[in-house]
Amino acid sequence: MIGARPHHDGSPLYVSDDAPSIGSVVQVRVRIPAEFGAVKSVTVRSDPDHEPRWSNGAHLGVRDGWSWWEADVLMSNPQIGYRFLIVRADGSHEWLDAMGSHVGESSDADDFRLVAYPAPPAWGRSSVMYQIFPDRFARSDRAASRHTPPWAVLANWDDEPIHSGPDTGAQLYGGDLDGVIDHLDHLERLGVDLIYLTPFFPARSNHRYDAWSFDHVDELLGGDAALQRLVTAAHERGFRVLGDLTTNHTGDSHEWFTSSRGRPDAPESEFYYWLDDEQTNYVSWLGVQSLPKLDWKSRELRGRVIEGSESVVAKWLAEPYGLDGWRIDVANMTGRHGADDLNADVRRTLRRTMIEVNPDTLLLAESTNDTAEDFQGDGWHGQMTYASFTRPIWGWLAHRPETPWFFGIPYAGIPAVDGHGVHEANVRFTAHVPWRVRLHTMNALDTHDTARFAGFAHVDTLPTAVGLSMTLPGIPVVFAGDEFALTGDDGEHARRPIPWGRVVDAASTIDMYTSLIALRRSHIALNDGGMRWLHVESDALAFIREHADESVLVIATRAAVTFDLAVEGTALVGDITIEAGRVRTDGPAFGAWQLPGVQHP
Amino acid sequence: MIGARPHHDGSPLYVSDDAPSIGSVVQVRVRIPAEFGAVKSVTVRSDPDHEPRWSNGAHLGVRDGWSWWEADVLMSNPQIGYRFLIVRADGSHEWLDAMGSHVGESSDADDFRLVAYPAPPAWGRSSVMYQIFPDRFARSDRAASRHTPPWAVLANWDDEPIHSGPDTGAQLYGGDLDGVIDHLDHLERLGVDLIYLTPFFPARSNHRYDAWSFDHVDELLGGDAALQRLVTAAHERGFRVLGDLTTNHTGDSHEWFTSSRGRPDAPESEFYYWLDDEQTNYVSWLGVQSLPKLDWKSRELRGRVIEGSESVVAKWLAEPYGLDGWRIDVANMTGRHGADDLNADVRRTLRRTMIEVNPDTLLLAESTNDTAEDFQGDGWHGQMTYASFTRPIWGWLAHRPETPWFFGIPYAGIPAVDGHGVHEANVRFTAHVPWRVRLHTMNALDTHDTARFAGFAHVDTLPTAVGLSMTLPGIPVVFAGDEFALTGDDGEHARRPIPWGRVVDAASTIDMYTSLIALRRSHIALNDGGMRWLHVESDALAFIREHADESVLVIATRAAVTFDLAVEGTALVGDITIEAGRVRTDGPAFGAWQLPGVQHP
Repeated sequence: MIGARPHHDGSPLYVSDDAPSIGSVVQVRVRIPAEFGAVKSVTVRSDPDHEPRWSNGAHLGVRDGWSWWEADVLMSNPQIGYRFLIVRADGSHEWLDAMGSHVGESSDADDFRLVAYPAPPAWGRSSVMYQIFPDRFARSDRAASRHTPPWAVLANWDDEPIHSGPDTGAQLYGGDLDGVIDHLDHLERLGVDLIYLTPFFPARSNHRYDAWSFDHVDELLGGDAALQRLVTAAHERGFRVLGDLTTNHTGDSHEWFTSSRGRPDAPESEFYYWLDDEQTNYVSWLGVQSLPKLDWKSRELRGRVIEGSESVVAKWLAEPYGLDGWRIDVANMTGRHGADDLNADVRRTLRRTMIEVNPDTLLLAESTNDTAEDFQGDGWHGQMTYASFTRPIWGWLAHRPETPWFFGIPYAGIPAVDGHGVHEANVRFTAHVPWRVRLHTMNALDTHDTARFAGFAHVDTLPTAVGLSMTLPGIPVVFAGDEFALTGDDGEHARRPIPWGRVVDAASTIDMYTSLIALRRSHIALNDGGMRWLHVESDALAFIREHADESVLVIATRAAVTFDLAVEGTALVGDITIEAGRVRTDGPAFGAWQLPGVQHP
Repeated sequence: MIGARPHHDGSPLYVSDDAPSIGSVVQVRVRIPAEFGAVKSVTVRSDPDHEPRWSNGAHLGVRDGWSWWEADVLMSNPQIGYRFLIVRADGSHEWLDAMGSHVGESSDADDFRLVAYPAPPAWGRSSVMYQIFPDRFARSDRAASRHTPPWAVLANWDDEPIHSGPDTGAQLYGGDLDGVIDHLDHLERLGVDLIYLTPFFPARSNHRYDAWSFDHVDELLGGDAALQRLVTAAHERGFRVLGDLTTNHTGDSHEWFTSSRGRPDAPESEFYYWLDDEQTNYVSWLGVQSLPKLDWKSRELRGRVIEGSESVVAKWLAEPYGLDGWRIDVANMTGRHGADDLNADVRRTLRRTMIEVNPDTLLLAESTNDTAEDFQGDGWHGQMTYASFTRPIWGWLAHRPETPWFFGIPYAGIPAVDGHGVHEANVRFTAHVPWRVRLHTMNALDTHDTARFAGFAHVDTLPTAVGLSMTLPGIPVVFAGDEFALTGDDGEHARRPIPWGRVVDAASTIDMYTSLIALRRSHIALNDGGMRWLHVESDALAFIREHADESVLVIATRAAVTFDLAVEGTALVGDITIEAGRVRTDGPAFGAWQLPGVQHP
């Protein structure tokens, strides 16, 4: 149980401007419950030029039992951390920062954060993402006439994916972009509005993370014209579309690599990290020789890929393609090798180029590591990561000690956590990025790189998990096939084709997804509201997303529970009963309620 | 009480090389007590290129009840974080990182850290520092003949310092560098071996942080020749000497500032941040107009101050002066203004220049903020800061809620902490820097910027405080006058002259300092040993510094306590009794014991 505590987060209730410019002043507010005791003063400590700056809080008044205080934060620099010092009338005090309340001094790393970098597009935080792995999504009629490339091992749509061995990447099912167009009705019914396509560049694998060119769409997917058709069709229905770009490496069949391999005088030689003068050995992604690593010290490489209107990044955002943004693969390793660390330079340059073409675009980035350092909002708007949401939710609802799991923790299987563990991981792994980065962080139950959640979920917990992905701060992700309750024991298996037209008993799962996606998209509190935990116990979590116009209460459980929660609202989804301040569930359950909005005095 | 827990720190027992180069492999070891349970595996997670890397631990064997495991960390980059995953035979697991043990996933920010930057000099970690504020330390016979500059208000040696108002910085007592030479006997008897001189450059204040030139030693201090005399005399006795340089600002009487103020065509115009085209308004340190801020984008400024053999940094390290290093003032704000952040560039360049002149030099830097981000060992070797030692020790032993305190926390006085608070603050504010930075961090009870500890200490707790400064990892600091138990209610008052030859009943305090300094300097475990907390309670702290050659147990209390501690050793200092595994003190006490060294199997 979480008692009433002083609260602040980055939402509009507490921060006057989450896209300030350098030199501007932002008002930050904290609400303090009566239970905290009489308050003598509230002071905000920020860190301009890395020097403490103290600003006195003004008492705004009391509303609904909460005392509100406000102070200013001067945006002296592009990144400013701040925390609250709350002194009681008796002289005792507490600090409040992004990790919670503390009596002892807290560290700058745990501060709330404001940044003065260019703002993300307005639409990102209200999107529901649908991830499509093109080879496995759907084959259009056009696909039949295409030639099978020499590297490929053709599969029938009903074949099982090959889990390991040389054919894993070669097994080609032949899904294409027109196949996506064919099923936009399905996406529209489901209610998602942001399509994320894993790579569409030509490659020598079914996943296409080993591109041999960034100049064209793979002919196997329908070529450039198919992408135009898809984006046009998607935009007509109100969808947005993200591409997927590898900035860490290319394929070893990439034209830049083949032109420079063994040819030290080739202009593209400087694009890669060669280990010998003859340019036969080279640095590659985790030692995988088919994925040679890019060296961003090369100005020429920058111009070709990330910088300026002629770059790959720009080309596919501009007409006639008009992508709405990029997901960047292996962003965490990009630009990093030995003593080189050009990561910040690459991500900032890349985003600047995007802004020049179309500022209303979104930039998400993969980081399999802890992401805080790279995700301060200077380039990537949000993260594709696993620590804040995916792993704790699996640990709570799909714990299996015997299962090794891609992106998991070796030798410990999927570690079990209780509700406290979910809460702690979510706080810890979202505390160290600005609020607006948190709102653009992908909350995925699974992806093309993990096992499928549905096959591992404890009985009846799927709605709990999906509900949390739709209601916690961040961009909910549906990995195509999740809505059919597809299973998959690992990342490869998870890439099995969508069983269109096959007999799949998925109507209830599709309905559940449709209902929870609609919940997310119809409530501003779930996009722009604050995030306040109300109750945490082993088998249950409750939190509230508060906004000036409305609030949404969320309760998620993995077992039958009973606990007190003094709230009243209008039920939106779920069968959980709240009567006389008492919450009861008979088993795993998810519910949401609408409550009045919250305004500060 | 702290139970026996898995332990690792950056000392040689646990790390094969704390000065690795990029590409090398470092062995890291963890010891696990029998109480932890049977161990199935130990794995180390590091983060080359910000991607998780797992390396399997090998079991080295069991010694004295501890099971030791070893794994490799590849130094792929200049900075590598790592942590241990320990899996029990029953499948449960724990993480061990610099913040301690965790069941849930921990964040990269809390990892242990290794760095491949040039190593600090070998002597820094075994030094005991003596901080001298030249105007207030001692007047030599030569001082009498000097003219009083127009800005100065001459004071008699016995006058009280002026606490506030325009004369605070102008009050000149006339201490000089030959005065320091006159008292080297005292320093030698005390046992310190590293003299840190606050600035000796000519200025228009008694503190000289507002230099008007970096080319000469202030004539009021005896000029360049006096510095040569002092360094020569100090070196002859085995002392080293650090200077103090302001890289954030100069004085407004500095020749560069006066030549460019109002003169946009002056070559030094680019050295400062001007706020108008006429160059009449400018950015200054915290708005103090006498301290105009330097703009490190200027290549010319870099060449004059920090880069190359003609720079200020190089000049005073080279013959005929031969300083042994620098303490950098306001290092945290240096190079930071608005969107500019050249701090890393400045500190790395500065250190590179020092290495070119004499690599056997030390570079310490002031950071009034939390210091983790700037102190990864790429420039500054250690910190002059207050969060890890000064403030928690005051809070434990000198708590006064009514006292506002420079470098403290406004509106909360000196916050009370108990022993747990000291422990937590020490862990938290040393966890996020590499071990070797921790060993070079100044553990000061007070400085020229704070009140004097002795005047605030609870009865009989001074030995506890001084003992901790001498035995915790870091460089112990004696602010000249501390050994006379001088008092001072604030930073200005603390700068009162040393009462040489006056009747001061300080013999016992001097003896206490001498004894504890000797303890520090005669035990390698206190310089190079590990750091393992054994016992923490409200009124007592116990820890052990372990080294292959010997170990030193330390117990510090602020009141009468009794607790169990199953150790046996040879008493080195103090009156604390340990009998049959039971520690007893009658009141505040400090004690240290020598124990056998520790080796891994």
